[in-house]
Amino acid sequence: MNRRRKIYEGKAKTLYEGPEPGTLVQHFKDDATAGNGAKHEIIEGKGVLNNRISEYIFTKLNELGIPTHFVRRMNMREQLIREVEIIPLEVVVRNIAAGSICPRLGLESGTRLPRSIIEFYYKDDALNDPIVSEEHITAFGWANPQELDDIMTLAVRINDFLSGLFMGAGIQLVDFKIECGRLYQDDTMRIVLADEISPDNCRLWDAKTQQKLDKDVFRQGIGDLVDSYREVAQRLGILVESENALTTGPRLVK
Amino acid sequence: MNRRRKIYEGKAKTLYEGPEPGTLVQHFKDDATAGNGAKHEIIEGKGVLNNRISEYIFTKLNELGIPTHFVRRMNMREQLIREVEIIPLEVVVRNIAAGSICPRLGLESGTRLPRSIIEFYYKDDALNDPIVSEEHITAFGWANPQELDDIMTLAVRINDFLSGLFMGAGIQLVDFKIECGRLYQDDTMRIVLADEISPDNCRLWDAKTQQKLDKDVFRQGIGDLVDSYREVAQRLGILVESENALTTGPRLVK
Repeated sequence: MNRRRKIYEGKAKTLYEGPEPGTLVQHFKDDATAGNGAKHEIIEGKGVLNNRISEYIFTKLNELGIPTHFVRRMNMREQLIREVEIIPLEVVVRNIAAGSICPRLGLESGTRLPRSIIEFYYKDDALNDPIVSEEHITAFGWANPQELDDIMTLAVRINDFLSGLFMGAGIQLVDFKIECGRLYQDDTMRIVLADEISPDNCRLWDAKTQQKLDKDVFRQGIGDLVDSYREVAQRLGILVESENALTTGPRLVK
Repeated sequence: MNRRRKIYEGKAKTLYEGPEPGTLVQHFKDDATAGNGAKHEIIEGKGVLNNRISEYIFTKLNELGIPTHFVRRMNMREQLIREVEIIPLEVVVRNIAAGSICPRLGLESGTRLPRSIIEFYYKDDALNDPIVSEEHITAFGWANPQELDDIMTLAVRINDFLSGLFMGAGIQLVDFKIECGRLYQDDTMRIVLADEISPDNCRLWDAKTQQKLDKDVFRQGIGDLVDSYREVAQRLGILVESENALTTGPRLVK
């Protein structure tokens, strides 16, 4: 790997300076964290799988005309992306009640919501990513009303696509988290999908057995995380059988 | 007092059947609670003062064309109100950061917000009145988008009026909480202000000294609550000096 300038290091990914202006390299690490970093493990192979799953999803979204920061996968752990100005919000789309919404609103996990619900959390580790509303977002200028509209339109379109994609693979899309950014190009700005979409930030349940195939396996310590993620990749047709060796055991290419 | 059917008993008020259909009697108790009932005391004279202060404010709002449930004050502790279908939301308007928003968003108490912010809390004691957004409200049907628009318009108008009213009395309106209801009349429904507006549900700071003149005096145990509320009533010109005896001491008319 060349010496590159590190731009930002997050819990599960690192961003490096890209090969040309306006680009970055997004590197997927094997770090798994939960509870805002309270639980932390290295799970060999997770980064490779998330890179592939996220590449697959972002490519399909680009083809559908849903704008993303994704350009192309570069290698096992890295993607070339366009540099965007990240909006400091975690945008969560929920189809079925699970996780924090259950104790908050007194819902039983697994309850289908009356309709899909978009929630916003202000990205701030020190504050534990508090839930916020459109009022807070526009008042503090984290996004303006037009941008917020664009983000919600993007979130709904992505939910439509992902729900169908996973349904076809026998998986229920319970909820997912996205991040968006401002892409400046040719004197215009538009809101695009950034970050990643992988089992790290989706809740994915087997449609028949309700078995969890996402990061809750790690959060709740109920199985092998890489096995679950590999299952998702296989069902989506991303990994062929012969490739499995690449993402497991000591031979893993870093 | 006649025997009347009790319709609802809350922490600080009781609702009785009214003298004619479509009306209720709103009775102000002396009970003060904080922390969702964790702290509870009887503070003699509080109910009488809140009845007077809320009467004064609701009368002015009605005159301004801001619809409320208020008809008229009946006696020291009671008001005649129109029966409405309460929307299960606490609507909070904040001008200056104080209370729960400070730890939540990392703001220092007393900071002026970039603009007034409306927050919604779902009224449910068992869930501790969780903060919710427009998405939750419309998805669960607590209010529809048109009603939510009406509520926000009402909240902004009330904030404008109250900010001016208190400013004229040397008091800073930091924030306040309202509740709204659906009033059905002549085959139409409209959203009206319900509940009460008093120092029980406003944060009121002396404009010069920042001395608290509201329920935080009780929450934080930093003075005599009735003295503070009486100060507010006097500054608004509601209580004349000779009336003070009515709201203090053992001669209080119940």
